[in-house]
Amino acid sequence: MANEIKVAMFGLGPLGIAIAKGILDKKGMKIVGAVDIAEDLTGKDLGTVLGLDRPLGVMVTNNAHRLLAKTKPDIAVIATKSSLKAIHPLLTACAKNRVDVISTCEELSYPYCRHPDLAKQIDRMAKKHDVTILGTGINPGYLMDALPITLTGACLKVEKITVRRMMDSSKRRVPFQKKIGTGLTPEEFRKMIDDKIITGHVGLAESAAMIAGALGWKLDEIREFPPEPFIAQKTIVTPYTTVKPGCATGLKSVAHGMRNGKSVIVLEFFAHADVEEEFDAISIEGVPNLNQKIIGGVHGDTGTVAVILNMIPKVLNADAGLVTMKDLPLPSVLSEDARVYLRRKR
Amino acid sequence: MANEIKVAMFGLGPLGIAIAKGILDKKGMKIVGAVDIAEDLTGKDLGTVLGLDRPLGVMVTNNAHRLLAKTKPDIAVIATKSSLKAIHPLLTACAKNRVDVISTCEELSYPYCRHPDLAKQIDRMAKKHDVTILGTGINPGYLMDALPITLTGACLKVEKITVRRMMDSSKRRVPFQKKIGTGLTPEEFRKMIDDKIITGHVGLAESAAMIAGALGWKLDEIREFPPEPFIAQKTIVTPYTTVKPGCATGLKSVAHGMRNGKSVIVLEFFAHADVEEEFDAISIEGVPNLNQKIIGGVHGDTGTVAVILNMIPKVLNADAGLVTMKDLPLPSVLSEDARVYLRRKR
Repeated sequence: MANEIKVAMFGLGPLGIAIAKGILDKKGMKIVGAVDIAEDLTGKDLGTVLGLDRPLGVMVTNNAHRLLAKTKPDIAVIATKSSLKAIHPLLTACAKNRVDVISTCEELSYPYCRHPDLAKQIDRMAKKHDVTILGTGINPGYLMDALPITLTGACLKVEKITVRRMMDSSKRRVPFQKKIGTGLTPEEFRKMIDDKIITGHVGLAESAAMIAGALGWKLDEIREFPPEPFIAQKTIVTPYTTVKPGCATGLKSVAHGMRNGKSVIVLEFFAHADVEEEFDAISIEGVPNLNQKIIGGVHGDTGTVAVILNMIPKVLNADAGLVTMKDLPLPSVLSEDARVYLRRKR
Repeated sequence: MANEIKVAMFGLGPLGIAIAKGILDKKGMKIVGAVDIAEDLTGKDLGTVLGLDRPLGVMVTNNAHRLLAKTKPDIAVIATKSSLKAIHPLLTACAKNRVDVISTCEELSYPYCRHPDLAKQIDRMAKKHDVTILGTGINPGYLMDALPITLTGACLKVEKITVRRMMDSSKRRVPFQKKIGTGLTPEEFRKMIDDKIITGHVGLAESAAMIAGALGWKLDEIREFPPEPFIAQKTIVTPYTTVKPGCATGLKSVAHGMRNGKSVIVLEFFAHADVEEEFDAISIEGVPNLNQKIIGGVHGDTGTVAVILNMIPKVLNADAGLVTMKDLPLPSVLSEDARVYLRRKR
């Protein structure tokens, strides 16, 4: 069998660490390098950073360029920033070293709406250097775009698509509960939105744009509404804090894709404590109407690690360019040695 | 804009007629020819055959070769037989005329299991003549293979996949109700299975093989069980017949994909009268477990027409060869002029 797929990790925050551990769990892939800008990580063995009881022989560095040139990875996993502009220099460095890219960067998942010129520029650059670049994750990248797009494949006509994620935030990490304003008074909540400390879910606009792109819909605009707090009716105790009645249990983030003055794509992201039922639901008004539900929903952190890992062989197999989930073959679990999914020589 | 996509129809049974009407409803595609072997159709205008009140200027012929050479279609829609061997000569004729193919032929949807040699031969032929060939439909092609494959994309690990279609046959066409043995005594039902008049659902083996192919699983075998009757506990009246207690209300078809001695893919197709709730459900045992349901299910006839129409631009865009749903980009509704989805010049 061919050599193992060589992966370089960029970003060792909670998500980067989870992805790195996921790669170590898979056959046919290995981590050949890891980059993080945090000073306290530089020079440490990746095994230590991941909390393993063994060294991996991979030293964390803050020098991306040297690492790319030295380790010649097949693919870079970039789990750093949400902003496309922020990761653009790294995308360029990867392309120039002929390294494919898969990234959790939300704005990269479908950049043709928010950053059309930069998207075209990245696409040209990727083609010039014969590399493939994909932004993905569970959301954006799967639950609110790829999956609803796939579901429209069973329809003769589609008038409107509504996607709703209902997530019980009390089951999630404490930083997540904090990020969605759990326990704040409405005034505190609004101030933190104004101060951009509470951002709501990032990526709804990208998901709406990807759906529209797949369906060939020209949208008038994508309206992203500021996050709204959910207000507790009674005292709610979570592992993070106690929410008093009248305070926020979490938030909802909503975006509408508008076409001919109507909301034709409605994306609703709910994350709060005291949720009756978790789910990921898609409903399509069309011929036929379709109502689909993932009962219990998909856990966001696990899901993003899964989608990133699962798409690695598909990125390696794809034609060069900036690609999006709608352009690639069906997502599928990387269940066996990662090399069995490869189609072409690296 | 480019010329309309030229479609040739092969087979004008109920499904072929529904697909032809679907094409007429879409912008950017036109039917340039229609072939059927039924003598009473030859020479008739397609508009008459479709029951329209206007002629379409397309005469139904029984000469496939002449039609292909004369009309030079972009794509042939083949809605004739379930057997790959039966449609193989027509696939060859299409390829030699450089015409792409999309077909409802169940065995073409994933032929690498039942007909590995013929599949490779068709793939080579398609590549030689630079055409793309796809077999698809709602099932096989979507509900019990493409959709479950897509769902595994959110998983880190998958141990077992169970797909269940529960269909209320009393809402379906009378020939369908007849085909599943509605109203028969258990003895009559078994005799009609022995005589191969009742075949159960065709395509479960292909769906199981496609899932295994996508996941990189080598199966020991695919077990297709003979259809079993559902037995009425009380008198049930359907638009087709009255089912007495003790007689069949319909059937179930089951197939298991076996791996290391265990059922890892379980496909269950239920079609009978007196159904409490229609649904299409997928459950995945893995990390995480996923339970997904399309509430109310997807109507088989509408669904197959939808999948065939929706995949036409994706076939035209694809690289040459025998392709399957797992290799192509995400299915999505053909909502606008079909030409907006085309990537390359014909």
